[in-house]
Amino acid sequence: MKISEVKNQRAIGIDFGATTVKIAALNDILEEEAALPLVLETTSYASVEHLIGAIADSVGEIQSRHKDMVALGCGVPGLVDFDRGFVHTLTNVPGWQDIALRDLLEKKTGLPVFIDNDANCMAYAEWRYGAAVGCRNVVALTLGTGIGGGLIIDGKLYRGSSFAAGEIGQMSIDYAGIPGPYGLPGILEGFIGNREISAMASSRLHHLQAPEGGWSPRAATQFAIEGDAEARQLWLDVAEYLGSMLASIAWLINPDAFVIGGGVANADELLFDPLEKKIRESVSNVISADLRILPARFGNEAGIVGSAAQAIDSL
Amino acid sequence: MKISEVKNQRAIGIDFGATTVKIAALNDILEEEAALPLVLETTSYASVEHLIGAIADSVGEIQSRHKDMVALGCGVPGLVDFDRGFVHTLTNVPGWQDIALRDLLEKKTGLPVFIDNDANCMAYAEWRYGAAVGCRNVVALTLGTGIGGGLIIDGKLYRGSSFAAGEIGQMSIDYAGIPGPYGLPGILEGFIGNREISAMASSRLHHLQAPEGGWSPRAATQFAIEGDAEARQLWLDVAEYLGSMLASIAWLINPDAFVIGGGVANADELLFDPLEKKIRESVSNVISADLRILPARFGNEAGIVGSAAQAIDSL
Repeated sequence: MKISEVKNQRAIGIDFGATTVKIAALNDILEEEAALPLVLETTSYASVEHLIGAIADSVGEIQSRHKDMVALGCGVPGLVDFDRGFVHTLTNVPGWQDIALRDLLEKKTGLPVFIDNDANCMAYAEWRYGAAVGCRNVVALTLGTGIGGGLIIDGKLYRGSSFAAGEIGQMSIDYAGIPGPYGLPGILEGFIGNREISAMASSRLHHLQAPEGGWSPRAATQFAIEGDAEARQLWLDVAEYLGSMLASIAWLINPDAFVIGGGVANADELLFDPLEKKIRESVSNVISADLRILPARFGNEAGIVGSAAQAIDSL
Repeated sequence: MKISEVKNQRAIGIDFGATTVKIAALNDILEEEAALPLVLETTSYASVEHLIGAIADSVGEIQSRHKDMVALGCGVPGLVDFDRGFVHTLTNVPGWQDIALRDLLEKKTGLPVFIDNDANCMAYAEWRYGAAVGCRNVVALTLGTGIGGGLIIDGKLYRGSSFAAGEIGQMSIDYAGIPGPYGLPGILEGFIGNREISAMASSRLHHLQAPEGGWSPRAATQFAIEGDAEARQLWLDVAEYLGSMLASIAWLINPDAFVIGGGVANADELLFDPLEKKIRESVSNVISADLRILPARFGNEAGIVGSAAQAIDSL
C-alpha cells in the first residue's frame, strides 16, 4: 500500500442508521482486520444529545487505539445541508429535526467532522475504494426498502443545488402509474422497493411454500436459484423496470459505471445478467462502449468507508 | 458592459445545421446589431471540403470587419469527440462521417477552433448569456423534431464519459411503451417531438379546419390561443409528458434551473404554466424551492452564441 493511501485513511467513519449507529476507523474496515465497528442502538437513548454523547465516547474509544486520527465522517439516512453540517430530517429516526450535527460532534470529539447523506457516502466509498475506482462519472444506487443514489461527476461527488440530488428511487418509469409520496406517478421505488418485490413474490409464487415470516426478495432469490420459473421471471421483471430507469439515466449522464448495491442486489446474476442486457439493448453503442454495470464492493461497511473517506479527502 | 465581458466576446460562432450554416461574430449577435449572420446552404456544396472552404471564406469576411477575433466555435447537429475536435456523424447531413473538423477549420482560418454538439452549445449560451446566467446547475433542452439537451454541472458544461450526455429525448417515460430507435420503450421524443405533436393534432382536432400544409405544433398553439378546448387539452397533455420527465430529472440532478427552448416552446404559457405546476407537484419542497423553469432567451442564435462563447471561454 502506498504511503499516500495510508495517510488518507487516518479517519473514523460513522454509519448512522435507523436501527444502529456503527463506528469504526477507515483502515480497520479496508484492511478487513478483526476490529469490528462499535455498534450503538439508535433508539435506546433518551435524547438526541445522549446519542451524540455515546457516539463521541465510541469515537474516543477508537482514538485510544488509533492515536493518529485526523477526521471524522458521518453518513445519515436523510436530508443534509452539507455546507453547514446540518441534518434537516432523518427518515425513520424520530426527533432528528434540524440538528447541527457537525458542530455538536466537533465540540465533543475535537476532530473536524463532515456530514453527508448515506447514499452519497455509498457512492463515494465505491468510487474511492470500491467497484468504481478509476472511473470519472459514476451513478451508484442502493436497492433496499428505499432506493437511494449518489453521483460522481467529473471525479467529484455531485450533491445538487440543495444537496438533494441522486434520488433515483423517486424517478418515474411510468408517467401514467400510481402516484408516489411526492405526487409523481410510477416511481421506481414503487416497482422494486423491498416491499414491492415481496408483494410481487407473494402474489405470484402461490405454488411455493411461503417462507416463515413472509415473502422477501431473499426468499424469491432462493427459489429462483432452485430453478422455479415464476421466481426467475420475477427477477427478469425487476431487471426490466430497473433497466428502463438506468438506460434513461445513461442517456442523460453517459457515465462510465453504474454501481449497484443493497439487499436486492444479492440476487446477483439473476438480476445483473438481464439488467446488463436490457441496458445495453436500450442505449447507443457510444454510450454502451464506455459503460460498466458493477455490483458494489461494500455492503454494510459502505457508510463507514464513504463518510470517513470523504472526511479525510475534504481536509 | 464590463471590459472583461467585451474581451470575452472576441469570437466567431458557427451554427452548423442540416439545412443552413450560419456564421457571425458573438458581439454582433449579443448586441443585436444590424449585422445578420452569414448564411450558407448546407447541401449546395459539392463536397465536405468545399463547404468547409466556404465556411472559412465567411469567417474571413467577418474578420475583415472585426479585426480582433481570437477564437472560432462551431456547433454541429450530431455526435462529436470534443477532445479531438472530431465529428463522428451528423444527423441529417449526408457525407459527414469522421471529419476532423477542428483541424480543417484551424488550418483554413488560423484561429483556434472548438467543436461541440448543438445542444451543448444551446445550454452554454443560456448559462453564459441567457436565461440561466448565475445558475450553477442547469438542465437545458430544445423541443423540436428531435429533443436535445445539455447539462451545466457545478458551473461547467458536462459532456459525459464519451461526450454523449444530455440526450433527454431518448429517455423513457413509459417502460412499457413503443420502443424507440435504440430499443428503449416509451422515449420522450416519441411523445412530444414535432411530428408526434402534429400527429396528435391531426387525430384530435377533426372539428377544426386543418391548416394548409397540414398540422404543426404552431397550428395547435394558434387554435389553443383562440380558445379551442381540445387544442388546449393537447398542450396540457404535452406538459404532462414533459413534466413527468423533468420531475424525474429534478430528483436526479436537483438543478437550479430548467431552460426550455426550440419551436415547441413557442406555445409559451399554454405549455409553461401547466408544466411548471406538474413539476412542482412532483418533487420535494427542498428541490422545488431552488428550481426555476425558464423559457430560453436565445432562439436561432443559440448555436452561434454558445459555440463562440465556449470557444473564447476555453482559451
